[in-house]
Amino acid sequence: MRTLSPTQQAQPLDEEALQTVDAYWRACNYLAVGQIYLLDNPLLKVPLLPEHIKPRLLGHWGTTPGLNLVYAHCNRVIRERDLDMMYIIGPGHGGPAIAANAWLEGSYTDHYPDVRQDETGMRRLFRQFSFPGGIPSHVAPEIPGSIHEGGELGYSLAHAFGAAFDNPDLVVACVVGDGEAETGALATSWQSTAFLDPARDGAVLPILHLNGYKIANPTVLARIGDEALTRLLEGCGWQPYLVEGDDPEHVHQALARTLDTVLDEIADIQREARSGAEQPRRGEDGWRPWPMIVLRTPKGWTGPHTVDGKQVEGTWRAHQVPLAEVRNNAAHLGMLEEWLRSYRPDELFDDDGAPTAQLTAWAPDGDRRMGSNPHANGGRLTRDLELPDFREYGVDIDGHGRTTSESTKVLARWLAEVMRRNPETFRLFGPDETASNRLDAVYDVTGKTWGARVLPVDENLAVDGRVMEVLSEHLCEGWLEGYLLTGRHGLFSCYEAFVHIVDSMFNQHAKWLNTSRRIGWRAPIPSLNYLLTSHVWRQDHNGFSHQDPGFIDHVVNKKAAVIRVYLPPDANCLLSVADHCLRSRDYVNVVVAGKQPELVWLTMAEAAAHCARGLGVWDWASNDDGSPDVVLACAGDVPTLETLAAADLLRQDLPDLRVRVVNIVDLMRLQPPSEHPHGMPDPEYDAVFPPDVPVIFAYHGYPWLIHRLAYRRHNHDHLHVRGYKEEGTTTTPFDMVLVNDLDRYHLVMDVIDRVPGLAARAAVVRQQLVDKRAEHRRYVREHGTDMPEVADWLWPER
Amino acid sequence: MRTLSPTQQAQPLDEEALQTVDAYWRACNYLAVGQIYLLDNPLLKVPLLPEHIKPRLLGHWGTTPGLNLVYAHCNRVIRERDLDMMYIIGPGHGGPAIAANAWLEGSYTDHYPDVRQDETGMRRLFRQFSFPGGIPSHVAPEIPGSIHEGGELGYSLAHAFGAAFDNPDLVVACVVGDGEAETGALATSWQSTAFLDPARDGAVLPILHLNGYKIANPTVLARIGDEALTRLLEGCGWQPYLVEGDDPEHVHQALARTLDTVLDEIADIQREARSGAEQPRRGEDGWRPWPMIVLRTPKGWTGPHTVDGKQVEGTWRAHQVPLAEVRNNAAHLGMLEEWLRSYRPDELFDDDGAPTAQLTAWAPDGDRRMGSNPHANGGRLTRDLELPDFREYGVDIDGHGRTTSESTKVLARWLAEVMRRNPETFRLFGPDETASNRLDAVYDVTGKTWGARVLPVDENLAVDGRVMEVLSEHLCEGWLEGYLLTGRHGLFSCYEAFVHIVDSMFNQHAKWLNTSRRIGWRAPIPSLNYLLTSHVWRQDHNGFSHQDPGFIDHVVNKKAAVIRVYLPPDANCLLSVADHCLRSRDYVNVVVAGKQPELVWLTMAEAAAHCARGLGVWDWASNDDGSPDVVLACAGDVPTLETLAAADLLRQDLPDLRVRVVNIVDLMRLQPPSEHPHGMPDPEYDAVFPPDVPVIFAYHGYPWLIHRLAYRRHNHDHLHVRGYKEEGTTTTPFDMVLVNDLDRYHLVMDVIDRVPGLAARAAVVRQQLVDKRAEHRRYVREHGTDMPEVADWLWPER
Repeated sequence: MRTLSPTQQAQPLDEEALQTVDAYWRACNYLAVGQIYLLDNPLLKVPLLPEHIKPRLLGHWGTTPGLNLVYAHCNRVIRERDLDMMYIIGPGHGGPAIAANAWLEGSYTDHYPDVRQDETGMRRLFRQFSFPGGIPSHVAPEIPGSIHEGGELGYSLAHAFGAAFDNPDLVVACVVGDGEAETGALATSWQSTAFLDPARDGAVLPILHLNGYKIANPTVLARIGDEALTRLLEGCGWQPYLVEGDDPEHVHQALARTLDTVLDEIADIQREARSGAEQPRRGEDGWRPWPMIVLRTPKGWTGPHTVDGKQVEGTWRAHQVPLAEVRNNAAHLGMLEEWLRSYRPDELFDDDGAPTAQLTAWAPDGDRRMGSNPHANGGRLTRDLELPDFREYGVDIDGHGRTTSESTKVLARWLAEVMRRNPETFRLFGPDETASNRLDAVYDVTGKTWGARVLPVDENLAVDGRVMEVLSEHLCEGWLEGYLLTGRHGLFSCYEAFVHIVDSMFNQHAKWLNTSRRIGWRAPIPSLNYLLTSHVWRQDHNGFSHQDPGFIDHVVNKKAAVIRVYLPPDANCLLSVADHCLRSRDYVNVVVAGKQPELVWLTMAEAAAHCARGLGVWDWASNDDGSPDVVLACAGDVPTLETLAAADLLRQDLPDLRVRVVNIVDLMRLQPPSEHPHGMPDPEYDAVFPPDVPVIFAYHGYPWLIHRLAYRRHNHDHLHVRGYKEEGTTTTPFDMVLVNDLDRYHLVMDVIDRVPGLAARAAVVRQQLVDKRAEHRRYVREHGTDMPEVADWLWPER
Repeated sequence: MRTLSPTQQAQPLDEEALQTVDAYWRACNYLAVGQIYLLDNPLLKVPLLPEHIKPRLLGHWGTTPGLNLVYAHCNRVIRERDLDMMYIIGPGHGGPAIAANAWLEGSYTDHYPDVRQDETGMRRLFRQFSFPGGIPSHVAPEIPGSIHEGGELGYSLAHAFGAAFDNPDLVVACVVGDGEAETGALATSWQSTAFLDPARDGAVLPILHLNGYKIANPTVLARIGDEALTRLLEGCGWQPYLVEGDDPEHVHQALARTLDTVLDEIADIQREARSGAEQPRRGEDGWRPWPMIVLRTPKGWTGPHTVDGKQVEGTWRAHQVPLAEVRNNAAHLGMLEEWLRSYRPDELFDDDGAPTAQLTAWAPDGDRRMGSNPHANGGRLTRDLELPDFREYGVDIDGHGRTTSESTKVLARWLAEVMRRNPETFRLFGPDETASNRLDAVYDVTGKTWGARVLPVDENLAVDGRVMEVLSEHLCEGWLEGYLLTGRHGLFSCYEAFVHIVDSMFNQHAKWLNTSRRIGWRAPIPSLNYLLTSHVWRQDHNGFSHQDPGFIDHVVNKKAAVIRVYLPPDANCLLSVADHCLRSRDYVNVVVAGKQPELVWLTMAEAAAHCARGLGVWDWASNDDGSPDVVLACAGDVPTLETLAAADLLRQDLPDLRVRVVNIVDLMRLQPPSEHPHGMPDPEYDAVFPPDVPVIFAYHGYPWLIHRLAYRRHNHDHLHVRGYKEEGTTTTPFDMVLVNDLDRYHLVMDVIDRVPGLAARAAVVRQQLVDKRAEHRRYVREHGTDMPEVADWLWPER
């Protein structure tokens, strides 16, 4: 690890700059402590009294002085270099720091005019923090300059890279907590250096903040020795610079010196890369690692050193609120006042509470302030995608259900054109599965991003590729989130079962959307689009280990306002849905679609109309004459196949039964409108699913989800759902549905069992179906393939 | 990275050993290819014909020769050193390799007597692989010697450490795939070296298999250069040794030489650590890194080099089935035969298909065979925990709901005694939250495992501590799974919201349990116990970012046979539930309990009886005389508080209303017995929840889960559930329930709205409640605390 000593470079801060950055830092620390503790008396114009103290002391002090320090120093380099810089806060619990900085530089007041830069505004700033009706204690959408839902740790660096992609002039300063660095997501994020193109993309400047402790424990990276830490970071493509100390003056100079050095290096790397000369790749001689900073300062620096005989500053005890019980402990109250006054607020704010001119001059201006950087309110920068007409990419069909197509392969041709037309604002993400998911047609337009060594045998790799492939769902999701939050567009294609790896990341992003939609100044951002394929029903190469359709269940727990779930039954519907998703804003769109050859049910025009409705009766497959004896409902490609085959069987075996076939693309249509904006009104729902008519519902995922969505509907007592029930492993496609009782034969049996009066007259048919199932099981176990009559079934022309 | 050259050490394999290990490797490769391709003609006694080929070619060849190579070489060192060694397979898709090895060494036949070591058995071995009714294509519970649900990647190294903990004589060989190494979970697992005690624990020997490609891409670690890779691994506490090549003889000698060296080093480290002398810690001078192997061999080594003009061996094209369409492509068929014969099966198997004596002598004997190692069937080694009587740790109460206690703190005293009595078979895991979750009483008995540097200010750290704390839910879960799968016991305490980080790991473990329960020779293992605390209703320090009670929803999607969910309403119930969970086997137990002071409702005796029933009427809180007008149901500590407070209000305001209070501890009691083994029979359920009586159900999590569980029940149309609906952020406890309409006032309003005929006569009461809620909201926003009448409420003595 390099440490820049004063002899290597002149002191970068002259006396005035040194004093100013220290004053700026003190001001932010003061404002942060004030947020944690004070209800009133924000400028300490009178001695501190118990009634000035909040009744509940909440917030996290430990990380705050470090965040403030870096922010204050970034302001200088932004000004001096006219940098376009944003700030990502790994230790998101340091909410007070970012609110303090945003207020001090004026961004907060710009976004919240009633939190003025005066005594009243400062009081409001303090009071609202972690206070009912105020702002949360973590960095969150409410805080200008943030793209980061604080709280859960681990995603900062991936977000930073996502923000930097396709923003060549942007520098993303990213504070990584040393606790956060223990998470899996962060640990693998260091490797993102292999996926950043210095010519096309901006730069990420990680500042690993080694303050030594987590909530209650030392951190691994702080205790393995500098040599090991250096090796680890170097092994990931970084050149770390150490800034260390607990003497402010020393640290100010060292940090300033190091920031100048690393920014020079970044500029140099970018200049070379943009010179047009061929660049060495990571792993090759001459490749230049990216500079980063390791900042070792005490946890809770400048806070109380010792409280009640125990060391607090520099230990885990500084993590949250270092002084407790301040209202009714006079000694603590005294210590708090001393602590606050140690920042010399009278030098920092005038009598009205406004920051002094010295401080305001230290902050950059306008959009250059990190609290006002437009990338951190990415919707401001969002441009609509230029989308080719999806109808032109549809599959021409020869009657309903008679033409086979691989849905994702069809989609890929359209996606390729999307990528061609939007060469700076759209990326495709996948954990090593783009080709497996049949999306490889996009390689006709762009390569897979790869900045490390290549071999002659490699295919489709390019430093400036736009398909992001890495075997980490965390990285794919984190990069994409960073890309979306800064206003661009993307699609994440993933094996359905393993998207659960990012359940928690999805949670935090959905929370972000849910909150930011309520914040007037946050502009809508492009939706987070998931394409889940290689789904539960077709795991021929894999089996039980790859089966789980439960991401939908997970997703629909979040606020209806931001959640959309689509199950296009065929290639044409997938095109229509994808077009819709890429146009949308502020949603999470989950699309589930198969990659295997499957029948196409609808013409392109029919598909577009059907998807626009989200749910509809397929008249061509129904014979109910408006008054069905039974409704066969289906959602998902494989359930749709089985349902149509069941309808075919019913026509053959029980021709006078009036059967209605309903296909659901937009799952949320099933909920009442009170629960989801897409919900069908009851009368409309009742028209499709008449209240007393049995519904046999073949669903892609866990069957109870349908009950959960539809339990308020009038015909719920007649709703009978089949779906995945955790059966089956490596086997044939039809055997998979059979062992889960979702097969055509079982659906017909369900009809016979559920339609009043049918059981007796269809007893023979039913027994034939039971026999058919048994026969198939034997056949599969003997031949290893499905019976041709099943595998080759087509919807009959009529 | 060190490379041991022949000059550094004599060739470790003499001519005979070299020939034998090569033959063993060839045999396993042959058996693996046979599994992927052959239906019949397993010994190639006749020329290969299309009908000998499986109709569907499934499986993964690419990783297989590497897995076979390492396995074959481990056999030698196991024999020579009488090692207790198990084998963990990161690239779990290499199922054919492990099945081949298990068969060749005889373990497979021991577990499946009908898969004999003869031609018939070999045919069966081949045919069953990835075949309907057979075994899946991934390493899975069906395969002897595995503790690893293949499929999802990333957990091998954490599992390996979990297996090594408290097994001082065990060496866990762990093949890490270079694709897998890109995952977050694996990336952070390297740091486990800071948590292994060489004196008390066994050793983990990672073999990073750099075969260069994932499904469709090069891997990062294979392309960043050896120097960077070395630095990365060294930075994580490892001393890597490189074994590289594509000449079998060279690689055999190099691998044998390197295995000898690393095992000597491991033995040496352990000897020193066990000498009693003080050892340096990681990060201190003199600390010895753990040896590991980097194995660079071609992907799909020994398979077809070029197919249809494209290079396959050594590229991603070897990942799955290198030769496709073998049945109807004569050239491919010929290549397959050539490939199979290249292993010279006639030298490996006798005419009956039995392995030659040369091969059988190469494998270790009995339990030393990795396919029969008892640690890999951990239930064989499980001993019951010695549990102190939980009743002695209960809270003495002064009437129902009049005594306050922190539930997890009470639990901690019992847990401390559990840890004292079981010093080798129980560990507690948590992501830096053990103290935050109020479990710190365990530190009276044992420290937090920490093998890196310590400072004087640190507390409760110990190299041989038994509390595993690291800020990675992945590591906690992975370590614990490895510990359980090898037969020991543990508990994972986690913030409720962030347990979603391990959703996918839970999935795979639940799959493992579900499958292994069906396998006769797999002995039951201790349950996976989650204690979810710092839950959604009490996020005072955090807020919206920390709110998500949806893990329960995720969990109950898995097979009922392995899933249990408990919501103990108070400290005494938590003790009873915890005792039950630690005694159980083969389950996943999810326990949700608060850490904040909360009322204790039941005496210890009442709690034990209540938890045994899982659900019951609280007579002392009811006045229904057996015929209620309304049932107030509750599950979870905070909902129970609000429900009891609502019952109190009803008694005051509507004294003649007959109210029944039902508390649910065991959530699965709500399901019908057909759906879950704990499900209540309908008559019993109907006795508690009379079919026509409205139920106002206050639930801890997302309300629709209750509908999902109870939708088949007779009174479902009268079930009205309140729960978390994604509202609230940093605020007071009562404000949190209020903004989610789960508060006592709203519950009473729900009663008034739902009980027929009540609305009119309770209109005034209802308006008072509406006003009360508004008043509280104002109060909270003004004072920042809850109104005393709410905060200090106790169940009234009557």
